[in-house]
Amino acid sequence: MGPVLVIGTGLIGTSIALALRRAGVDVFLSDIDQIQLETAVALGAGLELPVAQAPSLVVVAVPPRHAASVLAQASMRFPAATLTDVTSVKAKVLADAVFEGADPSRLIGGHPMAGREVSGASGARVDLLDDRLWVLTPTAESAADRRREVYALVSTCGAYVVEMTPNQHDRAVALVSHAPQLLSSVLAAQLAEASTDYVRIAGQGLRDMTRIAASDSELWTDILSVNATEVADVLTGVVDDLSATIAALQAIATGDSSQSAKVTATLQNGALGRALIPGKHGAAQIEIAIVGVMLLDKPGELARLFAAAGESNVNLEDVRIEHVLGRPSGLVEISVSPDNAETLAAALRERAFDVRV
Amino acid sequence: MGPVLVIGTGLIGTSIALALRRAGVDVFLSDIDQIQLETAVALGAGLELPVAQAPSLVVVAVPPRHAASVLAQASMRFPAATLTDVTSVKAKVLADAVFEGADPSRLIGGHPMAGREVSGASGARVDLLDDRLWVLTPTAESAADRRREVYALVSTCGAYVVEMTPNQHDRAVALVSHAPQLLSSVLAAQLAEASTDYVRIAGQGLRDMTRIAASDSELWTDILSVNATEVADVLTGVVDDLSATIAALQAIATGDSSQSAKVTATLQNGALGRALIPGKHGAAQIEIAIVGVMLLDKPGELARLFAAAGESNVNLEDVRIEHVLGRPSGLVEISVSPDNAETLAAALRERAFDVRV
Repeated sequence: MGPVLVIGTGLIGTSIALALRRAGVDVFLSDIDQIQLETAVALGAGLELPVAQAPSLVVVAVPPRHAASVLAQASMRFPAATLTDVTSVKAKVLADAVFEGADPSRLIGGHPMAGREVSGASGARVDLLDDRLWVLTPTAESAADRRREVYALVSTCGAYVVEMTPNQHDRAVALVSHAPQLLSSVLAAQLAEASTDYVRIAGQGLRDMTRIAASDSELWTDILSVNATEVADVLTGVVDDLSATIAALQAIATGDSSQSAKVTATLQNGALGRALIPGKHGAAQIEIAIVGVMLLDKPGELARLFAAAGESNVNLEDVRIEHVLGRPSGLVEISVSPDNAETLAAALRERAFDVRV
Repeated sequence: MGPVLVIGTGLIGTSIALALRRAGVDVFLSDIDQIQLETAVALGAGLELPVAQAPSLVVVAVPPRHAASVLAQASMRFPAATLTDVTSVKAKVLADAVFEGADPSRLIGGHPMAGREVSGASGARVDLLDDRLWVLTPTAESAADRRREVYALVSTCGAYVVEMTPNQHDRAVALVSHAPQLLSSVLAAQLAEASTDYVRIAGQGLRDMTRIAASDSELWTDILSVNATEVADVLTGVVDDLSATIAALQAIATGDSSQSAKVTATLQNGALGRALIPGKHGAAQIEIAIVGVMLLDKPGELARLFAAAGESNVNLEDVRIEHVLGRPSGLVEISVSPDNAETLAAALRERAFDVRV
């Protein structure tokens, strides 16, 4: 495999380059931002252009609004190369790239499901893609040998392929990522005009639902704009369901209690949908038991807790700290398999922890 | 103070009774569910009715749909007693109770902001209300001495009063709790009809936003029905904002990029609203730094991590485990004050942890 040219040495592009270098693949790098490029080269992600040899594969890892034209330029400049990109939206990028001159038989779009809370080459990790899902979106026009080369890229980076059509991909990310982002923002926006006392009584549910509302608004405008149709479709479904629920609530408010069945159905559908989300490690949701421990909020308490848990030799599936409003302590909820709950609880009680199963 | 009669020995009622007993107050208990009542008595929460002495204060802690009539009955049966309730909606309960015969001068509604993931007397804790906020909703008709008695109840239970009108309270909980519950459910419901592959690529954002969609649909139908008008109002605001965003996205999809400013504004308003939510312990959001550590998913790793963190003597503000899809390891994000981030990171690196600041 290779040489590979990575255009765009941000977080994802540089991480892909590092993973390829780990596998001994020759990598060339290019970026209009000289600082990002130099950082990536310094990290050992590859060599700066000009390429000594025409690349067999070009990976375009630039922001969504530039992806199509960069793909088209790469297609024309390297007429023998296989082409892929890592943009978080697929159908429009593919159509625009082909419209601008990219060869559709050589272009297989992709979207690795990986990221970090930081951006740029300096945030790149050689193992960022390890064991991640990486959506590939071949079309009827994709040549079989080009597909094989992009599949090989994914496995060389340590990731797993999920194959979808470009439209399926865009609907999927609209549903699981883009529409939730806007819902979180719109919910949080309702707080902006509210009384401070109102917001003061907020609990963990609102905190969880508005966490992603703190995301970068410029980057998200870009992502949402490129996938605008699919996001609008998902949000229209949400608005329809909300409107039906509002009508049911308004009927209930006027005394028509028969409408409460509709509210119950909405809540039940939500519970069904929630249950479909895969659990940790992409597995089906497993049954877990929660062992609660009330901790003092002082240095060393979490350490003491996890040291005790470690001695019990029970594997912890998850940990959540419930912030107690106005109170200098916290309830730590440790998720374990139901078989292990009693073992863990006993071990913690033995060490004088305030355990609440 | 006292004797106090607690009607309804579920989680909240029994916890209030335990806190009153802790302060030496005489408590009598009543519940139509004999098992709950016997559990509460066995926990030492008080004595079963009949009361040896007329109660000076009656605390009604029954489900929302029964609260008004139980308050009215208590008002008539104990004509000298001060009355309060702990229902999560206030205006309708107060109006219905007065309509059914409760004396408005003696009735001060309340809503303690506390709960647990379990219900029933067996889940009660003597310290459940300690340092919590407890909304009280006196009206112009409330007598001053009755107010003082309910304020004393709150402080005796270790909690702090937030005073609101009944309508303010109902708007506040509609905004920070009831509407978010329905939004979470409606979002999760969109997943129910989606392809398994779509849901498979879900990340942490969707997980956080749908967590409360797993809540009890019967209980929530009850809560939402009693606060139907306020919840419908908040959701109407959400629907209006979503509809405007959908229109902007549809315009962008047809090539009108001028509409992207509206999407950016929605995202920015969301970030502003999010920033208003109080941080840990009810304080204003403090600046935090995140120290990331990539862990192997095996017993003892978290213990080893927190032991190392404990030795660094840095106070951990929060801990979040980022589940890595399809991967037997996890990124643990530890929040600390920015001053402490480098100290913690250095201590962890020294112990060979894979630290990612």
